Amino acid sequence: MANDPATEILDATYRALCEHGYANITLQDIAAEADASKSSIHYHYDSKDQLFVAFLDDLYERFTDRVDSPEGDTPNEQLEELLQVLLTTDAEPPLREFRTAMLELKAQAPYNSTLQERLTDFDEFLIEQLREILAAGMDDGEFADDIEPARDAEFLATTITGAQTRHVTINQSSDQLYDTMTRYIERHLLADEQPEVGR
Amino acid sequence: MANDPATEILDATYRALCEHGYANITLQDIAAEADASKSSIHYHYDSKDQLFVAFLDDLYERFTDRVDSPEGDTPNEQLEELLQVLLTTDAEPPLREFRTAMLELKAQAPYNSTLQERLTDFDEFLIEQLREILAAGMDDGEFADDIEPARDAEFLATTITGAQTRHVTINQSSDQLYDTMTRYIERHLLADEQPEVGR
Repeated sequence: MANDPATEILDATYRALCEHGYANITLQDIAAEADASKSSIHYHYDSKDQLFVAFLDDLYERFTDRVDSPEGDTPNEQLEELLQVLLTTDAEPPLREFRTAMLELKAQAPYNSTLQERLTDFDEFLIEQLREILAAGMDDGEFADDIEPARDAEFLATTITGAQTRHVTINQSSDQLYDTMTRYIERHLLADEQPEVGR
Repeated sequence: MANDPATEILDATYRALCEHGYANITLQDIAAEADASKSSIHYHYDSKDQLFVAFLDDLYERFTDRVDSPEGDTPNEQLEELLQVLLTTDAEPPLREFRTAMLELKAQAPYNSTLQERLTDFDEFLIEQLREILAAGMDDGEFADDIEPARDAEFLATTITGAQTRHVTINQSSDQLYDTMTRYIERHLLADEQPEVGR
């Protein structure tokens, strides 16, 4: 990739995380992936902590790009697209490895307030996206009129988090979890009669 | 506590985990908590890995004791009792610290098949408990007749896992998560008319 060196280091961090996990990763691993020296990493990032904050900021940009305005003609199609991005395995090849590293980072959050703030941003962004989709679907009659967008969005985000955790911990199939989620949406969020069918 | 030394070491492991986290814990920390020497720990457990497997086995016993046959006159009361045990903060004082250590262990599961097997046992036991409660509630008319006990149990377990993860990662209030779950149960699992009211 013809990126600038600072960006190339973040890309290398992603690959090194997938390979080594967060607990074992060293700046040397990242340097090896970036085909750079440890001192050139230190030139761009003062410490491992600072590098990981930059890495999370970069990841947040990518995450919001992927999750913002999901494709789909209706709110329900957008919701399904969002779940597909967040849960299915074909979205990105080293997904379980990356999720594992993210889960390690999540478990470190109580010890690191900067990390916790960044992870809270991810959580809040996702809930806000879900809330907007649910509210739009309620307005146009695609979703049931008794849903509560804010609370149901938080519930969905909690279940998505659980699906990602179980995918790492017990190697539960993401596709099965995706099916379970779409079943929940069909049974409990969609209106009994869809607008096209008249109502 | 007047436990035998092997059990005392497991109790000390619990306290040391809450204090130091899994990533940083050393046998020395556990020895200090147990008021024992490292060599006496090695006398009972060959390695740190073996100690943690024994610790998880012990935890599994306690977990199944707490989760098995929850109190309550009806399946819904049992389900609420189960959620209270699993989600609320007043159940056990150092809950967030302990959950943090458990989340660290969960993130290590892909690297350690013995650990993954043990965590899968926890997951399966919980789903089976939930499935039995849902099936019993469907039989006696307390739960809706269109639920699918096995799939809905897995969905609930996934959401519970997500609630525990978010509690650690973003310090989300467990009590709020408990409220969200009971709302889901009331709206989507309970039958519209309860057996007492006649139907």
